[in-house]
Amino acid sequence: MVRHRLERLSSTLHERGIEHALLNSFVSLRYFTGYQATVELEPSPMTPLLGVFLWIRGEQPTLYLADMEPGEGIAEGVLRESFSSYVIDKPMFAVQDLCAKLVAKLWSLPKSKVAIEPEEIPAALLDALRSECAHLEFCSIKEVLSTFRMVKDAEEIETMRAALALCDLGQKIARQQATAGRTEIEIFSSVRQAMEIQEGGRVPIIADVVTGPRTALTGGPPSARRFETGELLIVDLVPRHLGYWGDSCNTFCAGEPKKEYREAFDGLAALLSDAIAQVRPGLRVCDLDKLVRSGVGKLGGSYPHHTGHGLGISWHEEPRIVPYNTVPLEPNMIIALEPGMYFEGRWGMRLEYVLRVTASGAEVLSKYRHEL
Amino acid sequence: MVRHRLERLSSTLHERGIEHALLNSFVSLRYFTGYQATVELEPSPMTPLLGVFLWIRGEQPTLYLADMEPGEGIAEGVLRESFSSYVIDKPMFAVQDLCAKLVAKLWSLPKSKVAIEPEEIPAALLDALRSECAHLEFCSIKEVLSTFRMVKDAEEIETMRAALALCDLGQKIARQQATAGRTEIEIFSSVRQAMEIQEGGRVPIIADVVTGPRTALTGGPPSARRFETGELLIVDLVPRHLGYWGDSCNTFCAGEPKKEYREAFDGLAALLSDAIAQVRPGLRVCDLDKLVRSGVGKLGGSYPHHTGHGLGISWHEEPRIVPYNTVPLEPNMIIALEPGMYFEGRWGMRLEYVLRVTASGAEVLSKYRHEL
Repeated sequence: MVRHRLERLSSTLHERGIEHALLNSFVSLRYFTGYQATVELEPSPMTPLLGVFLWIRGEQPTLYLADMEPGEGIAEGVLRESFSSYVIDKPMFAVQDLCAKLVAKLWSLPKSKVAIEPEEIPAALLDALRSECAHLEFCSIKEVLSTFRMVKDAEEIETMRAALALCDLGQKIARQQATAGRTEIEIFSSVRQAMEIQEGGRVPIIADVVTGPRTALTGGPPSARRFETGELLIVDLVPRHLGYWGDSCNTFCAGEPKKEYREAFDGLAALLSDAIAQVRPGLRVCDLDKLVRSGVGKLGGSYPHHTGHGLGISWHEEPRIVPYNTVPLEPNMIIALEPGMYFEGRWGMRLEYVLRVTASGAEVLSKYRHEL
Repeated sequence: MVRHRLERLSSTLHERGIEHALLNSFVSLRYFTGYQATVELEPSPMTPLLGVFLWIRGEQPTLYLADMEPGEGIAEGVLRESFSSYVIDKPMFAVQDLCAKLVAKLWSLPKSKVAIEPEEIPAALLDALRSECAHLEFCSIKEVLSTFRMVKDAEEIETMRAALALCDLGQKIARQQATAGRTEIEIFSSVRQAMEIQEGGRVPIIADVVTGPRTALTGGPPSARRFETGELLIVDLVPRHLGYWGDSCNTFCAGEPKKEYREAFDGLAALLSDAIAQVRPGLRVCDLDKLVRSGVGKLGGSYPHHTGHGLGISWHEEPRIVPYNTVPLEPNMIIALEPGMYFEGRWGMRLEYVLRVTASGAEVLSKYRHEL
């Protein structure tokens, strides 16, 4: 699959008169080389970059990885090179070492253009490359790449099914845990534990777990707050599997929901269901946004956030389902739809499913079902 | 405390003829503004920077934060400004918005030097600033900052005690969980669950949890592998509390350890104890490294890694206790010592404590105790 992606990169760059590419964002590394960098919540103290993907037209694509990276999962056909990020016999010199290795490949190229991601490449590296390779022009392909991954290929769809199955499990456990007296962090922690045991390894996860009046904030990290009888609980789970993110959101009530909650929930669930029925290729995402946003308005609520978003290697990517975005849906886009309603200082709720746009409609990839 | 740190930054820059500073590494944000950025395993899809700290000599220090950041914990005296990272009514423009706000402050300065972290600042931002503010010279203070946080202040020491108390709890749970038949991920997951419930919120954590022959690899993430009777288990736990990292490592055996393991463990524990007894101000860290490394050699083993390292806002910082580093220990440095021994394809073990260098020796901050 990486081969097809590289062929598309090649033709896209060619159309723009760009010969080569040097990419270092996490998403580009995963997409073009198959490599899922290991990251632990903060940049490494050893190196500002874990890897760089160098694609020189006509040569074998090469992934330069920090030598502390395990390097599993690199796609066939992509060469792996290392740069030194941490050794015990001299001070750290990752950028210098990486730069020297890149320059060794770049200096002999004829005058040409090299696509980069200027928002991701550290200034130290780009400055050094410019200084050593004055014959090269480094130019941004941010705009191109922002929509490059909107339509998913077969391998991506399979991986995302597995990421979404983790969400299904998480929402199942959340339902079991959503009882009065449990704290948000207890609920969250049990959910992740179940996911990690099923996965057989660590599961990176982004999550909103909020109860009671905190639900009005749209989300937030799990705290020591206790879920009380009659309150609402929003559980939004975004776990990563093999470098791809799932997404899911349900709202629970501890005990019997009051009429206001029941009506809002039923209205929101029906609206989401109607919106899914409208999804088809050609529908502009701004129109989908409008449909859902105005529907929530008719229910007497509103939400300050997007109606949904694409997801994949990034947990939030194009097509962003927001009022300004006129992009039309295409088959094999994978999108999350997540209408909600929030009442300041009081309560909020949100329901989310992830779908794949098909040739004629939508396949709901989320298998858990919303129940208050 | 931030005030003292800023005064030291001011005088350090002044000595080098630098007037101002624009810093964006996670560690600098936390150290100079008190702000602990929320990060979730990968760079945000909305903005390549969560925040930038602008320090203009003679003016109030300002933290520019992405508007999605909660912004809790900013130190008194530090002004908070926002830049827009994601809104639903136009495409994302975080770097442009941040740049415009910085330029508004910078353009009227007289010709002067501004300290930056070139390995952390994205090229897009620095290029834009250079283009708009040609009268400013942006120069690196990487070298200065790499040792700036070596000696901890009172507030840091308190926070690190709490981070290390999380390690104590984690090691206690690990001991309870370290029984034959449990998988690595089950052990890890139970450890973190206990930490999160005690913390009342999510606990970012880096961890090695490896059993059996995997122990020979020095470490690795927890997998679905089952801990079997007679095997070793390395549990290295590095949790974060209020932006500061704890560290800890113990080695366990499932059931009665064989003689080889017992002797190695006792030798390593005695060596660590002897090394701690040698710690005092003035001891060069390379000499400490040599003492421990040669001691392990006498036990018939070796380790490919450092003997230890500083820790704090970063989980791995100066003073790195490695053969080349001639830095002498100073009071209120906080260091981890972690000798190990590894036999390829067979087994490995490692023991770690974290200490504070005192006026005359060392205070062991880790309260859990090593038992095989």
